[in-house]
Amino acid sequence: MYYTNKKVEHKFVTDVFKHLGVREEDAKLAADVVVQSDVTGVNTHGLARMPMYVRRLQQKAVNPTPNIRQTNESENLIALDGDNGPGNVVGPTAINMCIEAAKKHGFAAVSIKNSNHYGVGNYYGWKFAEANLIGMTMTNSTPNVAPTGGSVSMIGTNPVTIAIPAGKHYPLVLDMATSVVAFGKIRKAAEEGKKIPLGWAVDKDGKPTEDPNEALNGSLLPIGGYKGYGLAMVIDILSAVLSQSAYGLDIGNKFDPDCTKPEKIGHFMLAIDISKFLDLNTFKKSMDEYIETMKNTEKAVGVEEIYIPGEIEFLRAEKIKETGIPVAEGIQAKMIKIAKDVGIGSDIKTIDELFDRYR
Amino acid sequence: MYYTNKKVEHKFVTDVFKHLGVREEDAKLAADVVVQSDVTGVNTHGLARMPMYVRRLQQKAVNPTPNIRQTNESENLIALDGDNGPGNVVGPTAINMCIEAAKKHGFAAVSIKNSNHYGVGNYYGWKFAEANLIGMTMTNSTPNVAPTGGSVSMIGTNPVTIAIPAGKHYPLVLDMATSVVAFGKIRKAAEEGKKIPLGWAVDKDGKPTEDPNEALNGSLLPIGGYKGYGLAMVIDILSAVLSQSAYGLDIGNKFDPDCTKPEKIGHFMLAIDISKFLDLNTFKKSMDEYIETMKNTEKAVGVEEIYIPGEIEFLRAEKIKETGIPVAEGIQAKMIKIAKDVGIGSDIKTIDELFDRYR
Repeated sequence: MYYTNKKVEHKFVTDVFKHLGVREEDAKLAADVVVQSDVTGVNTHGLARMPMYVRRLQQKAVNPTPNIRQTNESENLIALDGDNGPGNVVGPTAINMCIEAAKKHGFAAVSIKNSNHYGVGNYYGWKFAEANLIGMTMTNSTPNVAPTGGSVSMIGTNPVTIAIPAGKHYPLVLDMATSVVAFGKIRKAAEEGKKIPLGWAVDKDGKPTEDPNEALNGSLLPIGGYKGYGLAMVIDILSAVLSQSAYGLDIGNKFDPDCTKPEKIGHFMLAIDISKFLDLNTFKKSMDEYIETMKNTEKAVGVEEIYIPGEIEFLRAEKIKETGIPVAEGIQAKMIKIAKDVGIGSDIKTIDELFDRYR
Repeated sequence: MYYTNKKVEHKFVTDVFKHLGVREEDAKLAADVVVQSDVTGVNTHGLARMPMYVRRLQQKAVNPTPNIRQTNESENLIALDGDNGPGNVVGPTAINMCIEAAKKHGFAAVSIKNSNHYGVGNYYGWKFAEANLIGMTMTNSTPNVAPTGGSVSMIGTNPVTIAIPAGKHYPLVLDMATSVVAFGKIRKAAEEGKKIPLGWAVDKDGKPTEDPNEALNGSLLPIGGYKGYGLAMVIDILSAVLSQSAYGLDIGNKFDPDCTKPEKIGHFMLAIDISKFLDLNTFKKSMDEYIETMKNTEKAVGVEEIYIPGEIEFLRAEKIKETGIPVAEGIQAKMIKIAKDVGIGSDIKTIDELFDRYR
């Protein structure tokens, strides 16, 4: 396995976005989000997503130089137009506004329209927690979940991230999609010729299936049946109806190589200043006690540790800080191809050659 | 089946609370919550809960005349002490403050401590929606869910209610616990000698079980595994850590007839004025379109209708308005017993006799 580090990956990703016409400042924001994903071991959303980001910019499905602007007047209930910019530029811009406004007013909410895939949720969770705020962010996404009772995918996996600071312990950062599993797991089972458990997905008629191929033509199931359906719907509405963005079949499908339609998805963020309710240190001490109480619960047979949401990503980040960021062979080839495609260098043959430019 | 109506049930419940020392104004609030439950067909939380409410007041586990007061200074980020009052008095008091503050400031959040079981979630959901606000309320509760990896119940089913107004359609009112099923379903299976599906509960060692009796000594499972665990934990923290209330094993168990310890649970409410982001009527029209899009999704085989969260309760309420509120025989006997116990009348023999007093 080849390993890189945070700094090198950040410089490389920034350079790629710059070569695609993204302003340096914005390219750095986008790189922050991509790198955060690999640094926390969520490697589905790191370098692995670069080919999609690059393609969408090349296809002009995404605007490289958005004029991200507020469209209403409030200081802390902010309606933001992302101007079809990269989601990992629009999202960071929005959370910075959200944090600043919450610090000033005790509370802030930001409704964002005309955006695109905004990257790994824990980027936002960590930022809220670092700012000592309770924060929540959500986004709608390409539909692959059918409404309960329906047979056509109309709702995205619609992830939500919730962050709560603690004292000496890691903050709680819950980062979850509202479907039981991601589509990737179904695809993997299909490739490996394996069955999937009942409860993951339904076929094109809305019937439960154990066949991953039937599931690929069908829909994912939400967590807890109608409960997860309800949560996904709330996220759809707060992200897309409140901001007047696209939902369901109107969303441009970023995973379809031929689709040049903007996603036009929306996000919703909210932050609360804890100190408006009680002394921040009292809260943090109570959070530490809460975390310890839960972690010290008697364990189920065969379990070695009880984890708080987000803890595993913090632990992985500690490890990756030591080992470096692993870059799988498939990803190496894709990064070399990107470097050629965007004009970083036509003669690059190895990942070493490529990443050495960014040391 | 005996049927009563909203007005009669409300007068009866108010009278019961008054006989237990609750002030008339507060008794009416509590009755609002109890009646709302029966009126929407959520009969587990209506008259069926009266014996527990009565016992807890008789045991002095609940304070009949709380001094519910704000303990901080903010106008719209309100810390409230429920003074161990009835949850269905503290909750309505809190939501009224939340709605008023959100209307004035565009946003409000209320953190409530020292409270008790606050009744059916849709009471709060309907109030938010009627006020044209996006609203959310949550509460922690007696533990019966183990943390993922644990074998002891430490977290409640921790329900959350989220309301979003619509135009000509019913508002969306998602009202859900974060466990796959309620404990009642396990108890029922045990009584009927039936197996329970895997995925509902674990035994006392944290192992999955199909035996309801093992489950009764074990824990309920959260929706979506670690996802529901994470959501339940967030609700625990926003309800109880932020407000400095009890959680886990420190909560007084209202279902234990011998427990005279106050629940000391907390709640958290939040409301957003839609019109700060966009014109309210534009939003409502978009909500109608959203609801129609989802309801018109092609249906799964055998499904007649796709429902929006909360729609079934609105439809039930329409029906119950016509038929009256059904009062099962077991409940009739319990209401007669309550009437005797609290001193409404020692000679009452039938539910007719009892409820005729409130016509």
